[in-house]
Amino acid sequence: MAVARDLALQYARDNQEKFLNELKGVLAIPSISTNTENILDMERVADWLVEEFKTLGFENVKAYPTPQHPVVYADWLHVEGAPTVLIYGHYDVQPVDPIDLWDTPPFEPTQRGENLFARGASDMKGQVVATLKALESIVKNGDLPVNIKFIIEGEEEIGSPSLAAFMEEHKDMLAADFCLNPDAGMLGKELPSITYALRGMAYFEIRFFGPDHDLHSGLFGGVVHNPANTLMTVIAGMKDENGRITLPGFYDKVRELDANERAELARLPMKDDFYLEQTGASALWGEAGYTSVERAGARPTLDVNGMLAGFTGEGAKTVLPAHAMVKISMRLVPDQEPEEVHQQLLQYLEENVPDGIRWEAELLNSGYPSISERDTAGVKALSAAMETVWGVRPLFKREGGSIPVVADMQQILGIESVLTGFGLPDDHIHAPNEKQHLPTWHRGIEALIHFFYNLA
Amino acid sequence: MAVARDLALQYARDNQEKFLNELKGVLAIPSISTNTENILDMERVADWLVEEFKTLGFENVKAYPTPQHPVVYADWLHVEGAPTVLIYGHYDVQPVDPIDLWDTPPFEPTQRGENLFARGASDMKGQVVATLKALESIVKNGDLPVNIKFIIEGEEEIGSPSLAAFMEEHKDMLAADFCLNPDAGMLGKELPSITYALRGMAYFEIRFFGPDHDLHSGLFGGVVHNPANTLMTVIAGMKDENGRITLPGFYDKVRELDANERAELARLPMKDDFYLEQTGASALWGEAGYTSVERAGARPTLDVNGMLAGFTGEGAKTVLPAHAMVKISMRLVPDQEPEEVHQQLLQYLEENVPDGIRWEAELLNSGYPSISERDTAGVKALSAAMETVWGVRPLFKREGGSIPVVADMQQILGIESVLTGFGLPDDHIHAPNEKQHLPTWHRGIEALIHFFYNLA
Repeated sequence: MAVARDLALQYARDNQEKFLNELKGVLAIPSISTNTENILDMERVADWLVEEFKTLGFENVKAYPTPQHPVVYADWLHVEGAPTVLIYGHYDVQPVDPIDLWDTPPFEPTQRGENLFARGASDMKGQVVATLKALESIVKNGDLPVNIKFIIEGEEEIGSPSLAAFMEEHKDMLAADFCLNPDAGMLGKELPSITYALRGMAYFEIRFFGPDHDLHSGLFGGVVHNPANTLMTVIAGMKDENGRITLPGFYDKVRELDANERAELARLPMKDDFYLEQTGASALWGEAGYTSVERAGARPTLDVNGMLAGFTGEGAKTVLPAHAMVKISMRLVPDQEPEEVHQQLLQYLEENVPDGIRWEAELLNSGYPSISERDTAGVKALSAAMETVWGVRPLFKREGGSIPVVADMQQILGIESVLTGFGLPDDHIHAPNEKQHLPTWHRGIEALIHFFYNLA
Repeated sequence: MAVARDLALQYARDNQEKFLNELKGVLAIPSISTNTENILDMERVADWLVEEFKTLGFENVKAYPTPQHPVVYADWLHVEGAPTVLIYGHYDVQPVDPIDLWDTPPFEPTQRGENLFARGASDMKGQVVATLKALESIVKNGDLPVNIKFIIEGEEEIGSPSLAAFMEEHKDMLAADFCLNPDAGMLGKELPSITYALRGMAYFEIRFFGPDHDLHSGLFGGVVHNPANTLMTVIAGMKDENGRITLPGFYDKVRELDANERAELARLPMKDDFYLEQTGASALWGEAGYTSVERAGARPTLDVNGMLAGFTGEGAKTVLPAHAMVKISMRLVPDQEPEEVHQQLLQYLEENVPDGIRWEAELLNSGYPSISERDTAGVKALSAAMETVWGVRPLFKREGGSIPVVADMQQILGIESVLTGFGLPDDHIHAPNEKQHLPTWHRGIEALIHFFYNLA
């Protein structure tokens, strides 16, 4: 297999120009999923993927129709005893407005220096094509060393409305040992990165009702609970002075960081300076006893996302509002469960909202946190692959946000995701002048070749 | 003087029909101060007042022009050694929308049963005319027993924009021992009432600024102060669990209620049932150790009047907002001073807003609390007059709201106001079908006759 690997790597090096031209070809198709006028472009990219998979010798290749854009599936499952990797991707892209801020047209891929500029170059046609070209390098020189399934959707940029149902319907077809999701990125050109955990979420709208109509605060201020004051008190009470969340049992299932993981997180280049610069805040603050990068990725939070009550226009109106509303969300970490947090919130409200206030708490959105153990075969194979190519051990990240497809895979398919990718922080994804750094892209193809062989 | 008093009372009884017709005459003029098309009507009422004062033998009668509607002044100052009463009134009325909800046209005064329906019948042409007819009853039968000055503005329903400047400019002309302000009302047909104290106000808009732009709550939740969470915590901390306000020194100047005053307030018909019904709240709450009527009138409060931050539309948006805003107002009681409360707030914020949050606190509005001692000559004269007419001792009220003209008189002229009037709670002031209860109105005229003689 060492020979096959070397041949594959050599093929990738010999075909850099060809790979780049194929990437340019698919980037030229404006597959903007939110635009109905691009519906045929969506189909063109789906068809291109189908042809590509067939050329690579994949089986069961099919563009499955959905209410909007097709999901492309393909597999190759002929290595008994080897793991099965489900590879996730999306072939749709963001809109291009404001178009006049682009230096070159978004769908005329243009090379300037080491970068290729085009909508989707980084997010994530570039990553999908890198994966395909790694596989092409392998199959041109031998058999695939592992079992592979692909699921490539066309609705990621519009919130993946069809994906969960598709997964539910095709659970057996999609069964795998883990998912490789190359929709994340690297922290720098020389900083290959693996994201092994994501925070979950429980998002609530809470409404407090007091008087049955707005009151004159002069005539009635002091005799009834003001729902806005009360809401502030109740929400304030959800955190203590150490930044710990006080909902009953909130930390019971929080997986503590061990010394080893803390050491890994400490390697990340996101120090306090990074967070100060990114947020523009004049000081950082968070749960006592943890670093910023731990707080952002490995610890749960509770944030007010919105609040509204009474008179908010210019000037003074002496209203004692009849109701008040807040939106709060908790970011959850393994092994917290959104449903349990929902119950903890309800219990807290039952215990803390005073007589005279009626309340409602609506769960608007939720998602499970996810984590891949860093010593699984998948993570180790990817880590070793990256170290071979870049010469440094990759950084291991926990991401503070939630990626719905990762949570869905965990919930529906029962598999964890390993997130990586070869985009860079300055790629301007979702913005004008999106680009992909090409030397990194070619290294990414080589890293993926190593990854597949490492898995065998 | 006893004879003169009796003659005056008899005159009032003999001339009820005449008085009523004169009231109807002035109610027919649509003096809506906010409508520019009624500007000539405003002048007509001002002119009518000027003529009326001249007929009564008043001196220095003049309609003083202001940027909008004239202020009518008149005086009669010929009783050496007797007190001087400044009588406040306003001759403008509220708009009449929605006009189709009126049973009879608002400016065609119509008697139905014991009530006279017209815009301004209760608020407050009815009260101004009652005062004038009491004085007519006196001067037709002898000299005035006290010194009297009138200040009648035409801009009360639009916020008295010219009055403070007018008072500043005419301080000497308006000098008096106290002010009689009949723009308040009675608590029931058989419940004559004197309002001897009003709460003041300090109204603030407070803004918290954290990150320099809205952040993704997943990526950055947990590492910086969320200005909305922090604002809630800081505002919540302004009250303790007993409903006491925690601003430093806030209660230092609060005049405590003595047993006598508490007993008077306990006579008021506003029990907990009243507040439950008026507010529609399912339970009352307030500062521990005080009754509702004490909390509403004689104790300071702190209410959120409005709050706004982040995403408040439908659904979930995971924003960590860059800033948050709250409007809060403190109702103040004697002898609190708005400027001192402003300083207390600033001190509290300096001590309690954490690093990482920049804040602003803007004083939007303020007014001094006011109080007339219940044993002053003015209050005693009015109380005795009412008891004579109604056969019961009047109720003594503290009003929870603020009346700017009362605060201005206190600040600019250095005099307290005694508030009364002969309107009833169901008079529908500012609403369709405003009315004045006529038997109460005639009793009011008699009470005012007694009041003036009692003062001598």
